Amino acid sequence: MDSNTKMAASEKRKREVADGNNETEGQEETLKNAVCNKAGGNDDAPSEFLLSGFETKAILRDSAREKNIFVHGKIDDQEAVVILEKTPIREDSLSELFKNSRLKLEMRNDIYSTFHLHPPPQLNEIKTTVVCPATEKHVKKYLLQETFLLEETGEDYRSITLPFIQSQSFSVQWVYNILEKKAEADRIIYEDPDPDVGFVLLPDFKWDQKQHDDLYLIAIVHRKDIKSLRDLTSEHIPLLCNIRRRGEDAILKRYGFPATKLRVYLHYQPSYYHLHVHFTSLSYDAPGCGVERAHLLSDVIQNLQNEPQYYHTRTLSFPLRADDGLLSKFKDAARL
Amino acid sequence: MDSNTKMAASEKRKREVADGNNETEGQEETLKNAVCNKAGGNDDAPSEFLLSGFETKAILRDSAREKNIFVHGKIDDQEAVVILEKTPIREDSLSELFKNSRLKLEMRNDIYSTFHLHPPPQLNEIKTTVVCPATEKHVKKYLLQETFLLEETGEDYRSITLPFIQSQSFSVQWVYNILEKKAEADRIIYEDPDPDVGFVLLPDFKWDQKQHDDLYLIAIVHRKDIKSLRDLTSEHIPLLCNIRRRGEDAILKRYGFPATKLRVYLHYQPSYYHLHVHFTSLSYDAPGCGVERAHLLSDVIQNLQNEPQYYHTRTLSFPLRADDGLLSKFKDAARL
Repeated sequence: MDSNTKMAASEKRKREVADGNNETEGQEETLKNAVCNKAGGNDDAPSEFLLSGFETKAILRDSAREKNIFVHGKIDDQEAVVILEKTPIREDSLSELFKNSRLKLEMRNDIYSTFHLHPPPQLNEIKTTVVCPATEKHVKKYLLQETFLLEETGEDYRSITLPFIQSQSFSVQWVYNILEKKAEADRIIYEDPDPDVGFVLLPDFKWDQKQHDDLYLIAIVHRKDIKSLRDLTSEHIPLLCNIRRRGEDAILKRYGFPATKLRVYLHYQPSYYHLHVHFTSLSYDAPGCGVERAHLLSDVIQNLQNEPQYYHTRTLSFPLRADDGLLSKFKDAARL
Repeated sequence: MDSNTKMAASEKRKREVADGNNETEGQEETLKNAVCNKAGGNDDAPSEFLLSGFETKAILRDSAREKNIFVHGKIDDQEAVVILEKTPIREDSLSELFKNSRLKLEMRNDIYSTFHLHPPPQLNEIKTTVVCPATEKHVKKYLLQETFLLEETGEDYRSITLPFIQSQSFSVQWVYNILEKKAEADRIIYEDPDPDVGFVLLPDFKWDQKQHDDLYLIAIVHRKDIKSLRDLTSEHIPLLCNIRRRGEDAILKRYGFPATKLRVYLHYQPSYYHLHVHFTSLSYDAPGCGVERAHLLSDVIQNLQNEPQYYHTRTLSFPLRADDGLLSKFKDAARL
């Protein structure tokens, strides 16, 4: 499988990186053949025992708030990263949970009691992702890094960021696979096929669609000439308005979820350089919905209506991890 | 207690409510004796089956991100609130988790595989808190209000929001007490006394200053004629630049915390109508740092430099809770 598809799959896992800063990286040619049989190459292999021999090397990051952990280790002498995350507690599981779990009293104080509740396995799943074979880049990507806020002028973008993006050869072939229905076609919930203003809308890979609490969808535009916010001008207003209106309608129709409860935004920098828009539940603190990275679609449209070249000229702030190559470029240019 | 003290107290507690902490409330005398036997009063009662007869009435709130749920129901005809939360995944449990869990393959794509992992009960505890008997105050405290995103035009502000603010008599006497050193004077870490461009800087009440992880300070301006972002024009650029520069310097000096790691922003709507600026750690997902409510100070300055009346004329989005009086006003005006 080529490197672009690997990168595509890597990008889909972005939420598993707590700071939401997911950059896809290319895979070296030699790794294409280094299939970790149990995970990747052999459909008949018994995957249910995949992790029984997992050998932990290091914890890359963990979050007590989000109940997840990212582990670097080995499966059958292959480097691997395993990501474990507890699943949300669903209302429809409560009845069975209360009936069939054991409660162990921990503390009692007047009207307050705390317990350890031990549910049966089928009611208490841990979402598990295995990356195998994992490269050094995977390990680095998941390792928790310090973050810094950069201020990028229009000129910085042209002289530092754009050359950097172009030098990295961030391929978006996996995006084209979705647009051309070569991959994930069954996940698309809406499409406007218009080549100028059209897009596909699909659930973000990390939303399991089992509850609305963490509703998360992505609209990916059909046209291939817009890398990010920086490329947007007033010429794109019809496209942006179309995404907003039809995207909100589709989500209402499919999930009964009204637009007034949505947060619709772009990222800058984006995780991949093909224009896409995030639709998340307003009550969900989605990773990357912070003001330092998100830009409300309604604001973007309004800014372009008032000033056609708004995003070409203004200074934009965004966070970068300590190990990000772009941060080094800004340091070299004495812009940080 | 007047409304602004309520608001101040509400501010102080907002993070705790968002975290779902169980804060004890004053209990009416009669309730002290109304013991829910199985949970509270009888040490010999078999608590392990306490919830087997639990009757769910309503879900008060739940978080897919934090993997918790707050449930209102009944235990033996007594009102109760049950709080369930998945526990963090600990490193020391990994070895046993990998050995003794069943993995069920969900999806495989090249080097990436996702699974449902079902651990044995002893490895997968749910932290459970029972409040029984629960009062109406408990139920209301834990009840999550729906939130809606409003779009307020400049005209909406003048015809709906401003009259509403003025009708509510939101007093900011407590703010003046800080500015005049009648209260919290010992918490001020920096002050510029200039009446036009000056401000005080102090830690936000919810930051205990024990770690930088959740660093949070507030700059409150001395001048009393700016309620919010809506009142700002290019006339205020010197004030805003002064807050930014001197605020960042003061934080660097006091805490060794550099500006590149700060998120500096205003809220719209603000919690109180006297201009103030938030300084939070970039790596801390502070409540209210989402794009729907936060406005980077650097962006505000830039917008005013380009367009003096920017915040008078543009449409601003912000979230409102279902029980917010302002939401009713927008509904009455058919703006929602």
